[in-house]
Amino acid sequence: MSDMTGDYYSLEVWLPIFINAILSLSFYLITSRIIPKLCPMFINARLYGFDLNKTNSEKVPEALGVVAGCMYLIAMFLFIPIPFGSAVLQNSYFPHDELVKLVAALLSICCMLLLGFADDVLDLRWRHKLLLPTVASLPLLMVYYVTYNSTTIIVPKPLRLAFGFSVNLGVLYYLFMSLLAVFCTNAINILAGVNGLEAGQSIVIAMSLATFNFCELSGEQWRTHQFSLFFLMPFIAVNLALLKYNWYPSRVFVGDTFCYFAGMTFAVVGILGIFSKTLLLFFIPQVVNFLYSVPQLFHILPCPRHRMPRMNKISGLLEASKFECKEDELTSLGRLILDVAGKLSLVQLSRKDGVISGNNLTIINFVLVKVGPLHEAHLTSVLLTIQVLCSGLAFLIRYPMASIFYDVPR
Amino acid sequence: MSDMTGDYYSLEVWLPIFINAILSLSFYLITSRIIPKLCPMFINARLYGFDLNKTNSEKVPEALGVVAGCMYLIAMFLFIPIPFGSAVLQNSYFPHDELVKLVAALLSICCMLLLGFADDVLDLRWRHKLLLPTVASLPLLMVYYVTYNSTTIIVPKPLRLAFGFSVNLGVLYYLFMSLLAVFCTNAINILAGVNGLEAGQSIVIAMSLATFNFCELSGEQWRTHQFSLFFLMPFIAVNLALLKYNWYPSRVFVGDTFCYFAGMTFAVVGILGIFSKTLLLFFIPQVVNFLYSVPQLFHILPCPRHRMPRMNKISGLLEASKFECKEDELTSLGRLILDVAGKLSLVQLSRKDGVISGNNLTIINFVLVKVGPLHEAHLTSVLLTIQVLCSGLAFLIRYPMASIFYDVPR
Repeated sequence: MSDMTGDYYSLEVWLPIFINAILSLSFYLITSRIIPKLCPMFINARLYGFDLNKTNSEKVPEALGVVAGCMYLIAMFLFIPIPFGSAVLQNSYFPHDELVKLVAALLSICCMLLLGFADDVLDLRWRHKLLLPTVASLPLLMVYYVTYNSTTIIVPKPLRLAFGFSVNLGVLYYLFMSLLAVFCTNAINILAGVNGLEAGQSIVIAMSLATFNFCELSGEQWRTHQFSLFFLMPFIAVNLALLKYNWYPSRVFVGDTFCYFAGMTFAVVGILGIFSKTLLLFFIPQVVNFLYSVPQLFHILPCPRHRMPRMNKISGLLEASKFECKEDELTSLGRLILDVAGKLSLVQLSRKDGVISGNNLTIINFVLVKVGPLHEAHLTSVLLTIQVLCSGLAFLIRYPMASIFYDVPR
Repeated sequence: MSDMTGDYYSLEVWLPIFINAILSLSFYLITSRIIPKLCPMFINARLYGFDLNKTNSEKVPEALGVVAGCMYLIAMFLFIPIPFGSAVLQNSYFPHDELVKLVAALLSICCMLLLGFADDVLDLRWRHKLLLPTVASLPLLMVYYVTYNSTTIIVPKPLRLAFGFSVNLGVLYYLFMSLLAVFCTNAINILAGVNGLEAGQSIVIAMSLATFNFCELSGEQWRTHQFSLFFLMPFIAVNLALLKYNWYPSRVFVGDTFCYFAGMTFAVVGILGIFSKTLLLFFIPQVVNFLYSVPQLFHILPCPRHRMPRMNKISGLLEASKFECKEDELTSLGRLILDVAGKLSLVQLSRKDGVISGNNLTIINFVLVKVGPLHEAHLTSVLLTIQVLCSGLAFLIRYPMASIFYDVPR
């Protein structure tokens, strides 16, 4: 608990968190009320889609993530003065550097929301999905550059023989931070397509990170973890409100806006909370899904526009969607990948008349192949359970196993 | 020139301005190139309108202000480290408070762009036009609160007998700042409806403010005026690019997004540059237009949805648009206003069969009534000339006449 006096420490750590929690609760309630009211506006603005896995053809308003995002921003704007209350009241030294971090983080998130919403409305091209988070992470990097500019990292123990105790990554560190935003954003975006999954996985990740932050509040670095909690609690709140309407059967879609918003929020807390490696640990399902998707994303195997599962109209259950192609049109690399993946039971293949077909390479389809057809709500629950279990694994790696890689105190 | 040594002063004042100017020029070129490329996306997204004062019925992409705004943000993001170059290089005391101002100002502008674009897409209600700038000015107010919280103003000389030398406005000062954002935003929004007018007037105001800032660079408060220039020069640049396409005949419309964006930028420089009274001086045409519009805006007189001038299809010239109503349906206040305004030749009235009609109460229609029908491009030029002349008047009030109201050094 470091060497502060207990009472003062408690107040300084817990009072802002407590106020943040109350604010979060209020904004959960406000967001829950406001989302259904705004839906007709989205439909009028032709921002809607149809749920391919439903038998009716109702218009479902799209990009409601922007509402959650705006509510989040308002909550955070109102929260800005709170962590600085004691400095203002006591007229003592004002921690401008802390305020800069807070405001710059909000600027990055706000910019990402703007660009994400523009993407949903204007339907930007695929390459923009990589460009936009880079642009939105600029304020963060710029502020990091002028205020900290510490680009030295501690090398994990097994690599110290090669690299020494610490390495100054220089400009590579900025590249890493910028890529972190791109990764977080797109990782959520490609693990999607089932009602409630985008919002659900983001909530699981945010709750896991918040748990991690709470565990670390008693440590020496409590300030950075408190900072992270300030961002995560309102995020969880507005997204729980969003999930209420996005859960099966979805009355709203969250849109790409949401994935950008969630991804940038995670990147921001990871970078400014200085736990970007731990952050990545909570993205295990997304990383696995990305690696599993690589052959399709890079067009080594055919990649249909939609890879989400399809509903069997008779049973009402979701089944894995498939890609197919003529066997002789495959490159030799593609054939090799399919052979190996087929032998390892990573993909369900079938061959007929020289045409080969397999399940689309997402963990959503993989689950359906292994478990069999599932009801949509059930499928989301299974996937979110996997996410929770992986968070457990992440804690296992972060705590008991961390000593393999780093010198851990205590 | 205060008491700094000349060379160092020159470098610290002018180098960042010079770099900002180069950045502005680059972003003028980039924005000019990117706007026409993005137009088809706006049309596909059904973000378009028809120009009511043209004989053809081509789709004109709407809300292109968001592109100018995003380009502006990117330029400003790249600029963030520049003013702090010397502090970083010399490893000297780092002015975190200056950085907070910069980042908070960008956060307010970014948030305003997001909300403005959402308004254009979702077509929010009229009351939101007052609410949104208030929300977007929150970060600015919050940062102002925790860092400066100086709410004391110097009372103008003629009022000092009543109020004393200075008055602490307290919470009223925050209300004033918040209303400034609402005012600037809506002032531009209601002086609109002719090709090129929104962007044109914003550029004239921005250039006038920049001129004022340049004049003040040699004074003691040079930092705040330099700060304002950092924001105004890229603003002028991206808007000149926008005006190229928005000028008669408009190939793009700027949208409400633009009015929000421009208004918030002005509010930000006025508040953080600490010259909000001078700022208002450059809004004389907008203030007059607002006061002139009051009877219609508050529905004392009938207010048609569009109050912009109408094209006479035969002559191809714009003529003042009119409201009309039965004379006995007017309230006594409405009748009084019309009588007085008619006698003062402020409105062109005609009566026929108990129906009274008059030009809609905007200075655009007023000009047409006084000067006669004009070609659209000509009308915009006349209105912008008025704006320039009013800026001249503003300088006259600000400089030679300021000593009537305040103690002016020198």
